[in-house]
Amino acid sequence: MPAAAVSPVLDQIDATLPAALERLMDLLRIPSISTDPAFKPDCARAADWLVAELQALGFDASARPTPGHPMVVAHGSSGTGPHLLFYGHYDVQPVDPLSLWHRDPFDPAIEETAKGRVIRARGASDDKGQLMTFIEACRAWKAVHGTLPGKLTIFLEGEEESGSPSLIPFLKANAEELSADVALICDTGLFGETPAIVTMLRGLLGEEFTIRAASRDLHSGMYGGLAQNPIHVLTRILAGLHDAEGHVQVPGFYDGVSELSDDLRAQWQNLAFDHARFLGDVGLSVPAGEQDRTPLEKLWSRPTAEVNGIWGGYTGDGFKTVLPGEAHAKVSFRLVGQQDPDTLRQAFRSWVEAQLPADCSVTWKGHGNSPASVMAIGHPAFAAARAALTEEWGMPAAFIGAGGSIPVAGYFKTYLGLDAILLGFGKDDDQIHSPNEKYDLTSFHKGIRSWARVLEKLA
Amino acid sequence: MPAAAVSPVLDQIDATLPAALERLMDLLRIPSISTDPAFKPDCARAADWLVAELQALGFDASARPTPGHPMVVAHGSSGTGPHLLFYGHYDVQPVDPLSLWHRDPFDPAIEETAKGRVIRARGASDDKGQLMTFIEACRAWKAVHGTLPGKLTIFLEGEEESGSPSLIPFLKANAEELSADVALICDTGLFGETPAIVTMLRGLLGEEFTIRAASRDLHSGMYGGLAQNPIHVLTRILAGLHDAEGHVQVPGFYDGVSELSDDLRAQWQNLAFDHARFLGDVGLSVPAGEQDRTPLEKLWSRPTAEVNGIWGGYTGDGFKTVLPGEAHAKVSFRLVGQQDPDTLRQAFRSWVEAQLPADCSVTWKGHGNSPASVMAIGHPAFAAARAALTEEWGMPAAFIGAGGSIPVAGYFKTYLGLDAILLGFGKDDDQIHSPNEKYDLTSFHKGIRSWARVLEKLA
Repeated sequence: MPAAAVSPVLDQIDATLPAALERLMDLLRIPSISTDPAFKPDCARAADWLVAELQALGFDASARPTPGHPMVVAHGSSGTGPHLLFYGHYDVQPVDPLSLWHRDPFDPAIEETAKGRVIRARGASDDKGQLMTFIEACRAWKAVHGTLPGKLTIFLEGEEESGSPSLIPFLKANAEELSADVALICDTGLFGETPAIVTMLRGLLGEEFTIRAASRDLHSGMYGGLAQNPIHVLTRILAGLHDAEGHVQVPGFYDGVSELSDDLRAQWQNLAFDHARFLGDVGLSVPAGEQDRTPLEKLWSRPTAEVNGIWGGYTGDGFKTVLPGEAHAKVSFRLVGQQDPDTLRQAFRSWVEAQLPADCSVTWKGHGNSPASVMAIGHPAFAAARAALTEEWGMPAAFIGAGGSIPVAGYFKTYLGLDAILLGFGKDDDQIHSPNEKYDLTSFHKGIRSWARVLEKLA
Repeated sequence: MPAAAVSPVLDQIDATLPAALERLMDLLRIPSISTDPAFKPDCARAADWLVAELQALGFDASARPTPGHPMVVAHGSSGTGPHLLFYGHYDVQPVDPLSLWHRDPFDPAIEETAKGRVIRARGASDDKGQLMTFIEACRAWKAVHGTLPGKLTIFLEGEEESGSPSLIPFLKANAEELSADVALICDTGLFGETPAIVTMLRGLLGEEFTIRAASRDLHSGMYGGLAQNPIHVLTRILAGLHDAEGHVQVPGFYDGVSELSDDLRAQWQNLAFDHARFLGDVGLSVPAGEQDRTPLEKLWSRPTAEVNGIWGGYTGDGFKTVLPGEAHAKVSFRLVGQQDPDTLRQAFRSWVEAQLPADCSVTWKGHGNSPASVMAIGHPAFAAARAALTEEWGMPAAFIGAGGSIPVAGYFKTYLGLDAILLGFGKDDDQIHSPNEKYDLTSFHKGIRSWARVLEKLA
């Protein structure tokens, strides 16, 4: 394929941006919240919408049923380059608290802001806007050249925001169909304004538990002072999760955590991460967590333990002097290096159980567990993608880490044997998982252009 | 008044019990649920019913309007003894869940049970059955002697089950009219089978607070390890509310807490409280709280701090890796002796605020605050009432404590300067505030007889 093949595609992308935006708006109107069963039909509708779009581009596309939400799989082929497996997810986070949104999260709109035009909607950045950058790049390529830009499999999940319960079984059952040479995952962001490829991803382990004491809620006047209060037990246990220097206290927690290479440490120092601004943007000023680590280490290469939810007793308006029968928490661990999720799950449970006083019991609900991913950055596709991003954005692209988990990267390695190139166009202020999520119009536009360039270089 | 004056009154009570029961049934048929505006006319009807009954006995009785439900005030006088102010309440708790009642809660009936005959209806025990014991004692006395048994003011509230919003203003506005020598409050129970007078009531201080860190909810992958988690801050603070021996750690918390007198300690030991059964009934076995105190001390004469509610982050189904911007708790303190609610509120707030790390702030919402009530049991009326109960029940009556709050006792002290004798005939299994409330026929019958004896001794 001639190197100049991309230039008319970029022109086509620029010329047809309004139509691409209209399509994204259609997708954003579908409230595909995967974690809430009430939205199951909407998840199916989003999958069907994507299948129709991909079929219109000439892909052999279908929505594959799972015990949860469907997987969209599409095959299309042109040329003799490497076979690429593209991944994105069409499901979105819940929207609560709805009162903090300044518009209906599923009534998307282009808004003018001080920093430029943005697409405002739940899922605009995570991940509908991002996955559409790839589909729109394919569309523009097809419009100009009459063919797709390479040997492509597009694989879109509908359960990423609810722990991907069907993903591993699906990968196992369809490993042959999903085989490829390298994976492309579009669910990450720029580093500030710098184009970036994520080569380290923290893993995730989620645990939910309930501590029970009395067999029913008690009156705190009648029983207070004599009956065990499970909220007290829960707060005591969770208060001991970290020591005063921010180190996690679960025995064996740091097994498998390794130090940064000198090369990556130097790259990260060059990124000149402005942690004061990063924290300042969300109203904070002082780095929390491990007191003996740099901010980027804390975010990318160090494991964490965070309480994501806690509840018990009376939480409504006014006051109720209840001494509750149970108390609950959701805790997650971000994992790095070789930390083993299953081993840590058991270590955490044992650690909690060892601290239960008389009359208390605990029940567990395990949520997602995925190990950390460390990519083989020596693979030539990484250099090609980096060059393409550097051209589009006019500045050197960087290999970075990512604090969040993108478990699919690890699963692709484990079940499909694929290294994954994680690149995306989200911004730090996109407010993913929060009210008023947005995606910059620039991210969408240059994202489509970036994929056209990446696909040209990889083909 | 001759001591033998009570004997024919007791005979009269026995002979006319069926008619007294019929009157109680009439009152129980009125659904005077004070907390639900739909029943406002019924509350007025109950007040009018009581006014008519009291007028028929020769009281100067009227229903006094308030912004909520009326207060019934009745004056009647005979003899030269102390002036007694009797308090009860004619409003009742809501009845939901109605499906758990085995009969219409406002269609009262006498039922035969394995433990004897009971009056089944909402309000049978709390507090219509109890307040009618006093009125029926007055009726029998009048029938026998032609006069009321002393200088009496009867004061019946219609908002006790909805927080008594009109009570303090009414007491302030009518302090002179309600002046008396001692108050009698009939809204408590026997201790097991033992007649009892409550002489200590714990006070209550409620606090609700929110700890804020980041200005919005964050993604725990993107910020976890670097950003402060307010749930962690909250659990650390609440975990320090008690030390390992169960002592509250707020500075100055125990100021004003005094030790039991040897006499009361001995009385309580004689009660042979079966804490194993008390805890066993709710699935517990080991006393929590202060490890150097007896179970009855913990329930009646020791102050407590209990977290009644806690919430923060994601608490719905599934998992959300949120690092929340805020976390909340509701905490209440049961107060004893001379502990000052306002001082403790400030001490608690200062204690929390002193523990806030960088970037965290706290906001407060104060809930109820009432000091403990400790009755002046040296007053001769207490000895008289105790002797009367001892005679009627055939076993020594006890001075006991109560873990919960009966705010009216404190208000009588504060606004009328009155000590209150709290005595009543409810049983632990009366299911007040629950479906299938009942009042033992024995409680009603011997309750009327008890008041006749108490009134004779006080007069």
